[in-house]
Amino acid sequence: MTIAVDAMGGDNAPQAIVEGVNRAIEAFDDIEIQLFGDQQQINQYLKVNPRVTVMHTTEVITGEDEPVKAVRRKKDASMVVAAKAVKEGQANAIVSAGNTGGLLATGLLVVGRIKNIDRPGLMPILPTFSDEHKHLILMDAGANADTKVENLHQFAILANYYAKKVLDIQNPRIGLVNNGTEENKGNELTKQAYQLLKNDAQLNFHGNIEASTILNGLVDIAVVDGFTGNAILKSLEGTSRNIFRALKNVLLNSGVKAKLGGLLVKDALGALRDNFDDTKEGGAVLLGVKAAVIKAHGSSNAEAFYNAIRQARKVVQTDVIKEISDYFEAEK
Amino acid sequence: MTIAVDAMGGDNAPQAIVEGVNRAIEAFDDIEIQLFGDQQQINQYLKVNPRVTVMHTTEVITGEDEPVKAVRRKKDASMVVAAKAVKEGQANAIVSAGNTGGLLATGLLVVGRIKNIDRPGLMPILPTFSDEHKHLILMDAGANADTKVENLHQFAILANYYAKKVLDIQNPRIGLVNNGTEENKGNELTKQAYQLLKNDAQLNFHGNIEASTILNGLVDIAVVDGFTGNAILKSLEGTSRNIFRALKNVLLNSGVKAKLGGLLVKDALGALRDNFDDTKEGGAVLLGVKAAVIKAHGSSNAEAFYNAIRQARKVVQTDVIKEISDYFEAEK
Repeated sequence: MTIAVDAMGGDNAPQAIVEGVNRAIEAFDDIEIQLFGDQQQINQYLKVNPRVTVMHTTEVITGEDEPVKAVRRKKDASMVVAAKAVKEGQANAIVSAGNTGGLLATGLLVVGRIKNIDRPGLMPILPTFSDEHKHLILMDAGANADTKVENLHQFAILANYYAKKVLDIQNPRIGLVNNGTEENKGNELTKQAYQLLKNDAQLNFHGNIEASTILNGLVDIAVVDGFTGNAILKSLEGTSRNIFRALKNVLLNSGVKAKLGGLLVKDALGALRDNFDDTKEGGAVLLGVKAAVIKAHGSSNAEAFYNAIRQARKVVQTDVIKEISDYFEAEK
Repeated sequence: MTIAVDAMGGDNAPQAIVEGVNRAIEAFDDIEIQLFGDQQQINQYLKVNPRVTVMHTTEVITGEDEPVKAVRRKKDASMVVAAKAVKEGQANAIVSAGNTGGLLATGLLVVGRIKNIDRPGLMPILPTFSDEHKHLILMDAGANADTKVENLHQFAILANYYAKKVLDIQNPRIGLVNNGTEENKGNELTKQAYQLLKNDAQLNFHGNIEASTILNGLVDIAVVDGFTGNAILKSLEGTSRNIFRALKNVLLNSGVKAKLGGLLVKDALGALRDNFDDTKEGGAVLLGVKAAVIKAHGSSNAEAFYNAIRQARKVVQTDVIKEISDYFEAEK
């Protein structure tokens, strides 16, 4: 199995990326890695290993690039060349911490959609507040700005395959994110989607779920249009970041008692914060394209990127993309 | 000035409602209050005051009711009769902690839309994480499941009036909630709305804002379709509730050191949590109808309900509804 890695994407590239690769190649002796990026920079951090190949590229898709244009014009961008390796069968998966829009465009334009899948979705796996059900799959977290009811149905099917095969969840409970839990709630889109999901016997449809409780372990998969899903994901991230920052401030600046208490609770808070670290499972999967495309967090450190490679390996091992392709190709 | 109060709505009704009324009538000698609900129950808690009148009603719109149906059928519901008093000019505002959908329907069907306003919006005022800009107006937080571009434009105008007149913000900065900050980002709806907001010279349009930063003080007003706004609001509430619960757990169950530290930081955490108390400013305003309609939090205690009455008083004092009506009625 070969994993193509975009060495130049993310805030800490290429160092964190290459260090993540060093860890992964040591941990898994059944993988090979192709590293795409500036050879000289990569070599500064790379531990030489016969299972790692560096493929020199001269361009990078940056955060400022307009995704679709950049993918079309920057023919020698690390991300694009890595995706081409996948497309041409030289690698089985691509992992990148680069520009999200760029990777989505690369996934669609270079790797290509699976037949009969109208819109692939971007699918992060989030840690929950539940001890029993530790993961929530959010689908779609923003690959699509405008979503049709058939897209929501396909998101549910795609996420369902992933939950079963990759996360080993036997009968994944699927919720539809809505503005109320009752069946008659919703906008035009969710009202119709509710009926499609309810009537699809292959899905374990749990009904509507509100954004306030998606992380409470009630469902394994939250199906949502990409615009709202993006807002929910960002709202979760922003609120959690803001609260922990405010917490730190209040413990440091509320007098001696709070400061002393702050020292005593520091480890416990650190552990708590670790619980919300959504890079432990890896990155977000662009599901619905012809190969495993993993978007690692832009702020990935070596460990986060290692986790994303581990996830890519698992996706390839389970052959879930093949199973999804077979299902959708047989559909019509 | 007379404020109509639905005594029977909310988790702690009628006790918390009536106690809130007791406080408000004492604090403000320029208001009268009409309390709608079960006379016997109300009298258990009411401090007799010549400026408070009890209007006996026999029905209640509950959380289980289907809003529009309930408003049409339960002719003697406390919420509906209170709204009729406003409609008929006997009261200037209505405050209720009852069923949100019921109050929205009551606002639309009984109080009625202002001429030329297509869709009123539900507008909570949220505490921010910024020391400089303490409030965020979220508009629409869920009065509408489906939203057109003209609605978003009207939401901005409505919230702008409120921010200026009621919150005394001189030149409110308006952000459009979107899936990226760049002008070309968005779905069909937000792309069009961006242009409308940008080209309206009466608005101080700040551009797009992401859900991760709406509470960081970058804007005073976040304009959003009601479906996404509802998801963002619920996501904020859910995340904050979950984190504080997890925090409590981790401090209680991570050994002696954390427990001791927890005791020391308890006051500071309490103060921090108070900062996120969105009932301090009162409730959410249904803006776009012909009178002040205030939705107090369903879990309102006496203080929260008092704050909602205080807010209703301010809205009436500023005559903002009249100003909004004049603007929109002159529009065509």
